[in-house]
Amino acid sequence: MIDQTHLSALQTILGEANVVTDAATMVAYQTGARYDEGLAAVVLRPRTTEDVSATVAYCMKNGLHIVPQSGNTGLVSGSTPDGSGSQIVLSLDRLTARFDLDLDNRTLTLSGGFTLSEINRRLERHGMFFPIDLAGDPRIAGMAATNTGGSRYIKYGDVRRNVLGITVVLADASGIVLKLGSDLRKNNTGIDWKHVFIGSCGAFGIITECTINLEYLPRQTATAYLVPASGQSVMPLLRVMERKFGAYLSAFEGMSGNAIAAGLSHVPSLRNPFQGGQVPQYVILLEISRSWDVRVGEQSLEAVVEEVLSEVWESRPELMADAVVGPTEQMWAMRHALSDSLRHVGKLIAFDLSFKRQETLTFCDYMRREMPHKFADVRICDFGHVGDGGVHFNLVVPMQSKLLEKPDFEVCLRDWVFQVAVETFGGSFSAEHGIGRKNQAFYDRFTDAAIKDLAGNLKSALRLGDMGAARFEGAAS
Amino acid sequence: MIDQTHLSALQTILGEANVVTDAATMVAYQTGARYDEGLAAVVLRPRTTEDVSATVAYCMKNGLHIVPQSGNTGLVSGSTPDGSGSQIVLSLDRLTARFDLDLDNRTLTLSGGFTLSEINRRLERHGMFFPIDLAGDPRIAGMAATNTGGSRYIKYGDVRRNVLGITVVLADASGIVLKLGSDLRKNNTGIDWKHVFIGSCGAFGIITECTINLEYLPRQTATAYLVPASGQSVMPLLRVMERKFGAYLSAFEGMSGNAIAAGLSHVPSLRNPFQGGQVPQYVILLEISRSWDVRVGEQSLEAVVEEVLSEVWESRPELMADAVVGPTEQMWAMRHALSDSLRHVGKLIAFDLSFKRQETLTFCDYMRREMPHKFADVRICDFGHVGDGGVHFNLVVPMQSKLLEKPDFEVCLRDWVFQVAVETFGGSFSAEHGIGRKNQAFYDRFTDAAIKDLAGNLKSALRLGDMGAARFEGAAS
Repeated sequence: MIDQTHLSALQTILGEANVVTDAATMVAYQTGARYDEGLAAVVLRPRTTEDVSATVAYCMKNGLHIVPQSGNTGLVSGSTPDGSGSQIVLSLDRLTARFDLDLDNRTLTLSGGFTLSEINRRLERHGMFFPIDLAGDPRIAGMAATNTGGSRYIKYGDVRRNVLGITVVLADASGIVLKLGSDLRKNNTGIDWKHVFIGSCGAFGIITECTINLEYLPRQTATAYLVPASGQSVMPLLRVMERKFGAYLSAFEGMSGNAIAAGLSHVPSLRNPFQGGQVPQYVILLEISRSWDVRVGEQSLEAVVEEVLSEVWESRPELMADAVVGPTEQMWAMRHALSDSLRHVGKLIAFDLSFKRQETLTFCDYMRREMPHKFADVRICDFGHVGDGGVHFNLVVPMQSKLLEKPDFEVCLRDWVFQVAVETFGGSFSAEHGIGRKNQAFYDRFTDAAIKDLAGNLKSALRLGDMGAARFEGAAS
Repeated sequence: MIDQTHLSALQTILGEANVVTDAATMVAYQTGARYDEGLAAVVLRPRTTEDVSATVAYCMKNGLHIVPQSGNTGLVSGSTPDGSGSQIVLSLDRLTARFDLDLDNRTLTLSGGFTLSEINRRLERHGMFFPIDLAGDPRIAGMAATNTGGSRYIKYGDVRRNVLGITVVLADASGIVLKLGSDLRKNNTGIDWKHVFIGSCGAFGIITECTINLEYLPRQTATAYLVPASGQSVMPLLRVMERKFGAYLSAFEGMSGNAIAAGLSHVPSLRNPFQGGQVPQYVILLEISRSWDVRVGEQSLEAVVEEVLSEVWESRPELMADAVVGPTEQMWAMRHALSDSLRHVGKLIAFDLSFKRQETLTFCDYMRREMPHKFADVRICDFGHVGDGGVHFNLVVPMQSKLLEKPDFEVCLRDWVFQVAVETFGGSFSAEHGIGRKNQAFYDRFTDAAIKDLAGNLKSALRLGDMGAARFEGAAS
């Protein structure tokens, strides 16, 4: 699928072993985390920033399309090649030469190929972690390129907030290497260009090295399920918890009854902790955590949470129908089981939406009212980061549904959901997953021409070639 | 100083009353917060984003140079005109039409002309604030354009971290209005262009509206002065405090003995709280704060801090020479008095530097050793945000010093300090103040050509005119 001249040139740059053409080895690099499968012309595995630079320069000069691939755990087809067989995968999985931990500065400068789990494994002995909490196990370069969010965003923010500096190879014919930002925690010397690359999904350049902010691991954690009396109670509960716990509120996740029911049916180890064995319509997973040890003369954090909940129970009886404090791991097990369990119920159609926080449940309610009229068999099994306005608005269609026989059903459904979410509710069509082939059409549809032009203009001003799975072009393109 | 045709055109756009040519009224708009004084061709006071857009379009079309001015409290001459009399000041002080508080979303969307103090005054009844803590009282648009830091950065971050969306008028001949970001807390739909304008010091466009993140006001605060046994003890103390208090550590400020002595001499209300009335060589102002009330059965935060300090005292006796817990306001009064007090001691030459955290004091020590050989009379009176690696490296020259007679003394001194800070210690020449005429030469000197070219290329791609006091041009310009 790739010209022999190009192949030889790339072998010269990277060494023969790092230019993968063997079909069996290529499979993993062509297959995404959720369904998508493409076809790569070749898979390149550079070891250093210099390797990446030389490779990018060669490819851009010769009009070869690179798709940078980091952990390949994204959910929008942002790191796999399309089906044409002409795109080159440039994998960062061998970029692991540098791991410079700076305990005083509370930062880590490292090569882009380290996985999140490996980073946190190495940090654990120092009582530290990189505070982005995800279901997948991405590599750091891709986390920065995608600007991933996660379940503890409400406390620690996104990757952008936790990246101090990057090294990036521009998608130009020279493979220019830029160092943007540094290991300084404070540095206000003009335009902070790293932000044009963080969240760009690899379209303008390949991040090969990062300096990231580290946090101390929490030493005490308390977790509870709150059952709001109604959808209207969720925001007042969030406000009470933020007011009470401030920076110690580390998660405020929502789980719909439909999603919980799927979890309870398909994961035998999960038990129903709610009154009378009923599954409530909606449950909030509350997590409070702090980094100090329990002190003499001080309540455990769990006791504090219990007391605050009793207080709410007494002073605002209209807000909660039930509340259960329980072991952290067990309570998160339910939350983590939801996504996979839904696949057992039927065909899963997933959305990663966000709204102003108070609109998140209003949107879901609206959809619960309208869905039966539009797509009768579709079950709404939403869950997600309601404390940030994020919702994994996941829909399940029973396998026997006639809807699945209609060839344009999924397209129509997605179209309608996105339209309501973005145009009626002012929400986002990609809360945390970024842009890839899977949602490119919605970027094209919902992005203002003037904003597209910023990208188009920058790209032509820097003479960048096409790179990545996402396209950020001027409006006229 | 401005052509009558232009004057009439601007009067037509803004109304006669909002085009200020009266010399007495213009003075305030021509005079900066620290020394600098320029001469404006005219001062324009638009009321709305549309006004700003029409004004910018007219000026850019006609080659008139605008300096946007917000609160005019910056310290680098970033919002005042130069001395040529040809630059137009566009003041944002009348942009106060919108103030939309969203308690559920914990955000505020407001016009750019609101001052920080007015914002916080209006938020207080809701128990909230905009968590950027500064000595000055800037307006919000300028805070975003400059990306200001402040004393509680260690907990809340900079303005960038707390801005969700902006409305910006591009510095082009059409005065294009862009809405970048929104009121969504999570929104990952491609390049987040607002970051090119936050921290650009108004060079690419004028921010007229912002959506900002709000935090709950702390309900408990405990403050202490720590006297480290030596410079080597500062980092271990910081690590202990971060480890213990995590997200409740809201300030870790350093004050040199020289700066404290100046404060004690010149502010009669300040008292010396240290053992034996001596002024220590270096003092840390520690602040811990949390947003919950003291609970039954729980220690006050002050008691917790006292206990932690005794623990450190016992387990790491080598770290501290003294520690005093005291009333928050009183303890901050010292910190806030430093900058002004130094002006009484002699001629103040101020630097806003930052380093990797462990290098901050190493740099100051190096300077204490080298300064006597280079500039014998100069006293080092540093203080600042050592918990973030920031240091207001302030130098005082006694008024009777012969140094002040040398015409190039200040230039040589600045040159040497910046060179050592940036080139020897890898630090930043502007930790939080941004770029203006006062430090433009150092931006030009210390910024890589490739990074300058990013700015130059974007500027020409978007066909932007010259705007602002700072210049971000391509390397060849």
